[in-house]
Amino acid sequence: MRTRTDFGARLEALRPEVDAALTAALDQTSLRDAPDGLQDAVRAALLDGGKRVRPTLCLLACEAEGGERAAALPAAVALEMVHAYSLVHDDLPAMDDDALRRGRPTLHVSHGEALAILAGDALQALAFEVLAVQEDAVLARDQASLLARAAGPAGMVGGQHLDLAAEGRRDAVGADEVRDIHARKTGALLQASFLLGARAAGADPEPWRAFGARVGALYQAVDDLLDAAGRGDALGKEAGRDAARGKATWVGVHGREGGRRAAAALADAARAELERRSLPGRYDALADLPRFLLARL
Amino acid sequence: MRTRTDFGARLEALRPEVDAALTAALDQTSLRDAPDGLQDAVRAALLDGGKRVRPTLCLLACEAEGGERAAALPAAVALEMVHAYSLVHDDLPAMDDDALRRGRPTLHVSHGEALAILAGDALQALAFEVLAVQEDAVLARDQASLLARAAGPAGMVGGQHLDLAAEGRRDAVGADEVRDIHARKTGALLQASFLLGARAAGADPEPWRAFGARVGALYQAVDDLLDAAGRGDALGKEAGRDAARGKATWVGVHGREGGRRAAAALADAARAELERRSLPGRYDALADLPRFLLARL
Repeated sequence: MRTRTDFGARLEALRPEVDAALTAALDQTSLRDAPDGLQDAVRAALLDGGKRVRPTLCLLACEAEGGERAAALPAAVALEMVHAYSLVHDDLPAMDDDALRRGRPTLHVSHGEALAILAGDALQALAFEVLAVQEDAVLARDQASLLARAAGPAGMVGGQHLDLAAEGRRDAVGADEVRDIHARKTGALLQASFLLGARAAGADPEPWRAFGARVGALYQAVDDLLDAAGRGDALGKEAGRDAARGKATWVGVHGREGGRRAAAALADAARAELERRSLPGRYDALADLPRFLLARL
Repeated sequence: MRTRTDFGARLEALRPEVDAALTAALDQTSLRDAPDGLQDAVRAALLDGGKRVRPTLCLLACEAEGGERAAALPAAVALEMVHAYSLVHDDLPAMDDDALRRGRPTLHVSHGEALAILAGDALQALAFEVLAVQEDAVLARDQASLLARAAGPAGMVGGQHLDLAAEGRRDAVGADEVRDIHARKTGALLQASFLLGARAAGADPEPWRAFGARVGALYQAVDDLLDAAGRGDALGKEAGRDAARGKATWVGVHGREGGRRAAAALADAARAELERRSLPGRYDALADLPRFLLARL
């Protein structure tokens, strides 16, 4: 069922704004003084494809807190830079060893492994540079703190480590462990998208943690279900890779049918969590987000 | 000739203070919530060995500007984290492919390639986290901006890219190109050490750029001369690697004897640059730094 304020519609509608901010940010950061080959790799990693989910969540959380969307654009750009760097590094031969992403050769295939490592490193630095050029120093510092924790060893990087460490022993990995891996690997940065957006509106970001955690878990659950169902079309990447690599997944723990039911329950809980709050701004698209994620199945 | 206020003596004397700050920082950042395996790799990368040159330069620049050394400790820690991450990534098989550093197996040898990539990524995030926990938000933002630019694609990461891109065509690389590679690869972060330290004292960091650039160039020139002379003892790593990899170096451009003379001229220029300024605090050890670097030869 498609509602009038469907999340997907806003994801599409905001995309030109996000893409323009990404391009402008690249032109305004120190990247313009970088060697050509590296510039090219960084631009390819950031600009070729991508649904811009994290920037959109950041902008919508800012709106929900009654802020001007433009105030959240630097954070939206920084989040997408960290996301892009994580994809490039996760795809490396020593990590998930993926040759295709979004139907194209991954960066280490097209540009070589050294340049892929360096482009990822550069994107992480650029994310913090983008936050640090903001006029409001307290905002810049607070967002940098939130982003560093979400992206760092206790968050995204820690999740990738646990995910790799769990490979090949999927039968020994329980529901709690899968939940922890997902909460870090995918959840932490998705959650941070809401936190940075809320902070851009001048609001306390902390009340967004619960909704962000549920959305993060749901996002990864749906990804695992699509992978197990061979739905490469909806994934935007080759399906069946999780099983092939012996990854610990939502489906491995809950099964296909149980996994769908658990995902639906998670979507209900996420929506209830948001409705429970009395937000000053518009949040209809965020309230629709859990349904939108489930509808990918 | 050893002067009373020799830089080496202060490097040694400040080391316990720097090491204590590094250990304390690790315990106070989000690293404490990271998975054990990753914590272990991050600690090994940051704490095993290292002369702590960058943190020391940062503390001394703060003193030279009349600041309290303690005010520069977060920046000193952040600089060493970025330096440590860069060594781990530079040593990777896809980059310089070094198996030994400071006489020990490099991180990808001891912990595996995936964990080495992730530990480097984590250290970069931690560096910005350490800056962002500072009470003074304007200081935190300004230092993050300086560090991100120095470490990013126009600085350190860009230098590593150019260095790799110049491999194997050393005969075609002129003096200007070698200077540019060094200014980015080693110079940018050394220069940033002075900038962040001066900023911690509340001073304008910009006047430190010229001295920082000369020190950075001299540092790398001495490294190249030691490498060409087979002085692995003074390098702390295997010598002769530059020639073996066909790297563009100071010696390749200036020759051994010409290179020594050019380095000595650079040391004089650096010292003159510092003496020319009227600094409010103690800077005798920094004035001795060019001599100290030359004396490694």
